[in-house]
Amino acid sequence: MMAAQVDASALTDVLDGQWSELRSRLRKQMTGARVVDRHHDLTTEAHRAQVWDGMRVLVEADYPALGFDPAYGGEGDVRGAVVSFQMLGYGDLSLMVKAGVQWGLFGGAVQMLGTDRHHQRYLRDIMSLELPGCFAMTESGHGSDVQHLRTTARYNNGSFILNTPDDSARKDYIGNAARDGRIAVVFAQLDIRGRQYGVHAFMVPIRDHEGNSMPGVRIGDCGRKAGLNGVDNGRLWFSNVRVPREALLNRYGDVSEDGTYTSLIENDSRRFFTMLGALVRGRVSVAGSAGSATQRSLTLAVRHAETRRQFQRPGGDAEIPLLDYLAHQRKLLPALATTYALHFAQNELIAMLHDTQTAPEPGERDKRVLESRAAGIKAIATWHATATIQTAREACGGAGYLAENLLPSLKADTDVFTTFEGDNTVLLQLVAKGLLTDYRDNFADLSPLATARLVAGQLISPVLERLPGLIIARPAMHDRTWHLDLFADREQHVLAGLARRLRTAASSDKDPFDVFNDAQDHVLRAGRVHIERLVLEAFVAAVRRCADPAARDLLERLCDLYVLSAVESDRAWFLEHGRLTPPLAKRVVAEVNRLCRHLRPHARTLVDAFAIPEQQLVTELG
Amino acid sequence: MMAAQVDASALTDVLDGQWSELRSRLRKQMTGARVVDRHHDLTTEAHRAQVWDGMRVLVEADYPALGFDPAYGGEGDVRGAVVSFQMLGYGDLSLMVKAGVQWGLFGGAVQMLGTDRHHQRYLRDIMSLELPGCFAMTESGHGSDVQHLRTTARYNNGSFILNTPDDSARKDYIGNAARDGRIAVVFAQLDIRGRQYGVHAFMVPIRDHEGNSMPGVRIGDCGRKAGLNGVDNGRLWFSNVRVPREALLNRYGDVSEDGTYTSLIENDSRRFFTMLGALVRGRVSVAGSAGSATQRSLTLAVRHAETRRQFQRPGGDAEIPLLDYLAHQRKLLPALATTYALHFAQNELIAMLHDTQTAPEPGERDKRVLESRAAGIKAIATWHATATIQTAREACGGAGYLAENLLPSLKADTDVFTTFEGDNTVLLQLVAKGLLTDYRDNFADLSPLATARLVAGQLISPVLERLPGLIIARPAMHDRTWHLDLFADREQHVLAGLARRLRTAASSDKDPFDVFNDAQDHVLRAGRVHIERLVLEAFVAAVRRCADPAARDLLERLCDLYVLSAVESDRAWFLEHGRLTPPLAKRVVAEVNRLCRHLRPHARTLVDAFAIPEQQLVTELG
Repeated sequence: MMAAQVDASALTDVLDGQWSELRSRLRKQMTGARVVDRHHDLTTEAHRAQVWDGMRVLVEADYPALGFDPAYGGEGDVRGAVVSFQMLGYGDLSLMVKAGVQWGLFGGAVQMLGTDRHHQRYLRDIMSLELPGCFAMTESGHGSDVQHLRTTARYNNGSFILNTPDDSARKDYIGNAARDGRIAVVFAQLDIRGRQYGVHAFMVPIRDHEGNSMPGVRIGDCGRKAGLNGVDNGRLWFSNVRVPREALLNRYGDVSEDGTYTSLIENDSRRFFTMLGALVRGRVSVAGSAGSATQRSLTLAVRHAETRRQFQRPGGDAEIPLLDYLAHQRKLLPALATTYALHFAQNELIAMLHDTQTAPEPGERDKRVLESRAAGIKAIATWHATATIQTAREACGGAGYLAENLLPSLKADTDVFTTFEGDNTVLLQLVAKGLLTDYRDNFADLSPLATARLVAGQLISPVLERLPGLIIARPAMHDRTWHLDLFADREQHVLAGLARRLRTAASSDKDPFDVFNDAQDHVLRAGRVHIERLVLEAFVAAVRRCADPAARDLLERLCDLYVLSAVESDRAWFLEHGRLTPPLAKRVVAEVNRLCRHLRPHARTLVDAFAIPEQQLVTELG
Repeated sequence: MMAAQVDASALTDVLDGQWSELRSRLRKQMTGARVVDRHHDLTTEAHRAQVWDGMRVLVEADYPALGFDPAYGGEGDVRGAVVSFQMLGYGDLSLMVKAGVQWGLFGGAVQMLGTDRHHQRYLRDIMSLELPGCFAMTESGHGSDVQHLRTTARYNNGSFILNTPDDSARKDYIGNAARDGRIAVVFAQLDIRGRQYGVHAFMVPIRDHEGNSMPGVRIGDCGRKAGLNGVDNGRLWFSNVRVPREALLNRYGDVSEDGTYTSLIENDSRRFFTMLGALVRGRVSVAGSAGSATQRSLTLAVRHAETRRQFQRPGGDAEIPLLDYLAHQRKLLPALATTYALHFAQNELIAMLHDTQTAPEPGERDKRVLESRAAGIKAIATWHATATIQTAREACGGAGYLAENLLPSLKADTDVFTTFEGDNTVLLQLVAKGLLTDYRDNFADLSPLATARLVAGQLISPVLERLPGLIIARPAMHDRTWHLDLFADREQHVLAGLARRLRTAASSDKDPFDVFNDAQDHVLRAGRVHIERLVLEAFVAAVRRCADPAARDLLERLCDLYVLSAVESDRAWFLEHGRLTPPLAKRVVAEVNRLCRHLRPHARTLVDAFAIPEQQLVTELG
């Protein structure tokens, strides 16, 4: 067995990246923390209460401070805040989401969309949990297309009056709403004297200190969910709810006493997407905790596969550990390689987020590239989580189905990650739009006008239309340059083809929506292969930073497995486009098998390197 | 819209096949039945109690009679029994599984493995639920390799003495054990005077009428599970539990008073697999109810996608229904086509089961072909269920995550279908072994010896080694002959390649396990493509039976979508093996898109044709 040769902690160093110290501190904090992560026998209300207690523990540990402005007792460490969510992802995901709602979405909205008056009044109470709150954007009728949500906020005589015109405009799935929230950041269409100014955010009290609904506010409970039942998701309806002028979170737009509207951003749509962009941290955090849950499921499944034996080896009495079977290796090891790859991409994303959000004057393009990358990595990482946790469950057989063995809650809790903070399909489309427009416009705008302009080719970056030269397949399966070229070339080719396709169709008299829609599979592919290229580059860069020779060798092979299993699953495209010959494609498949066998003795080391606090792994799985 | 042209009931006739009458009766019975299918807010104990009440309702409706021998008050309708499980699959799956445990596994074991004395004594009480029982085969340490389970039954002086040697030999995940079961069919290694006779089944009382454990029997509770929490899965340990000689279910082997063992089947291993084969109905039933759950999830998702709108169409005020998006069609419609295909294959499987189990002298080969097909369709149908219900959840967004909208329980309940009644990976391997040996041996035997003999080529059917001629790709995408040839040729080619690979490797001095294991991905592929060919043929045959011209046209296009989406997802293989050229492969992809657009207006009709009782579809999803 070669496993003994590689030190898991050397791998942990590479995984932790520039946050070694913070991650060590948080791991220690989690070990022996009073935060409990057993909840499968609790009723919904008991689980909510347990998570609330967990929130208090986090406050005592000064956890929320990381992400907030030092002027109000915070530490102003954007990176640290996101990394800490990632670490919470190793525990009860209800607690992670509840913390995300309170300090990420609600607190984040106050911090990023509000101004001094809001910061002074609210931030300390938000951090201390004195003021539990909600982020009330999604409506029953508008989830992806939030620009067209229908709650209204009419300015009248120094106040805003909020209304829910009908049931499809009720706020829905709102975390903290059903039980704990006292104030909600409500997104509503601003109306001043009959003129519309687009979506703005307002601080709206929804409950008093005794927990009674405020006048004009109706609160419903979303009830039992597939998972995350420690989070009290609810519904909100507003009927002539009056809030003062100062309730508007006015960083991007303000209303003066006499009803004059002012904003640095003239265009309503651009202003709204700028506001959304300021909230990008949520998506980054979801991608991170999806990664943590994936790592936890793989750790459980690999441990199980090392100890669980089934069927005797011919000529011997000993039964064969599951992980010795090629089919089992194929279930777990490529997923493990992809999990490493996404972890490194996530590290880069966090660094980019930090740099952008702490820069004195971040460039518009930088912000858009960040938004695009956050959207794409969120989509790919959460789909990977759903698929991998499912595989881990199946790989643990009947034992994987028992609640005490944790996989059921990992699966149920993460399921909605592909939906919340942006539906994955919509997010990948957004990535493609960014690429097509070279980030020159509000590519986050998925409105008909934006689509029509895109289809008309006005926004398509001309550089995209150059078709790259054909990448000649090289026979060396481990040639990293070939890997990088292969992924970069695929991205270029897919994008160029898409750009030409949209331009050609635009010159016909087809409906612009139909043109775009007919190409939707092509659009989504463009988003996906772009992200896969970035993820590979992040993996390659991380391996280069590894100082330990044995660990580095292991990571090189793991990176090979990531690339080649990705090529394998998309080899139809490579074959169709002359990037692989049939014999070479078959060699890719054989090489994935070979790498699985090669990495199998290191599987336990590779999951140990995640350094998940042991108390989060106590099961009967082995 | 062309949807109006096709009558859903004409499609229902084709789906119902030869069981129209029975299915209509069961649908009527379900509509307005007292069986409740809302349980997401129940505690485990309350859900178990509700399911128990549901069992009583089924008894009152004379439901269990279908599957049992007329001599004991049954109807002896094997087909009807399996179809009725399929219909139960539209309701609370806990009830389906509980019924399956009581009347399928437990009652089925008594009927199929026992003899008159057991039938007379037990069957009426089993049907009436007077005697709730368990099927205690799986142990913590042996799930797939049940031939090597380790519970012992030693014959001594007219009794069998059962023991659990250690914790890994405890019976695990046993339905009906934690709460209701009073007797268990216990599978144990028979030992007579120190000689081993392999696994046999014994009727072992585990609880008295007051619910107390019997002396020497320890009962544990598996506790909360991912789903199916209305079923009381438990664990059993035996310590010197003595049962009389008559407790042996002695159809396939008996022990006389003086301890003489007799059996019509000499070989222990062959006898055991013959016993397992007699229990094939369970796998067939699981495949059927997986199909029902899949149909229910697609019905919910298609209805939602018709009513839910998101984003405005350029130049119009109306928002676009989700199902107008190509990406959404691609999520749901190929899955819908595959669901139809599997339904038709399931109908054929049920007919084959009925014919085999009611034949006076079923041939050995027929029995093995049935077992193989049941294994393969169970594997493919349950994986399809897991993937499709997941997709349906995501396609319904946040609403799909709410328990009241049913998808969470459909997902959680069906998750273990890929594991129980045989792990899918093991089952597909079994299918491949049947093909390789042309069903000449106990191909269900996955033991080292059987594997070694297979690898040594002694069992490989020589006809397999002929490589078929290359199928020339035809340009007509809807050419059914081409489709059938393509699937048959792929199966032949994969099998022939595998046979040659195993023979070649066998002539080396490699360890037989390693030879087989190195080819495991090839083995699993062989099993899968065999089943896909059978499924296509079943679809084609069903379409031919459709008398209504409009319905038939629609089914032809749906069949096209099934074939072409299956070709699309495996087109790398077709390209690698010269069955598709790159331009043709691209045309397949384009044709799948075209078919999605073509079938989109019929989506609602196609799900309505499942004719799921409306009360099983009441949600907020639309």
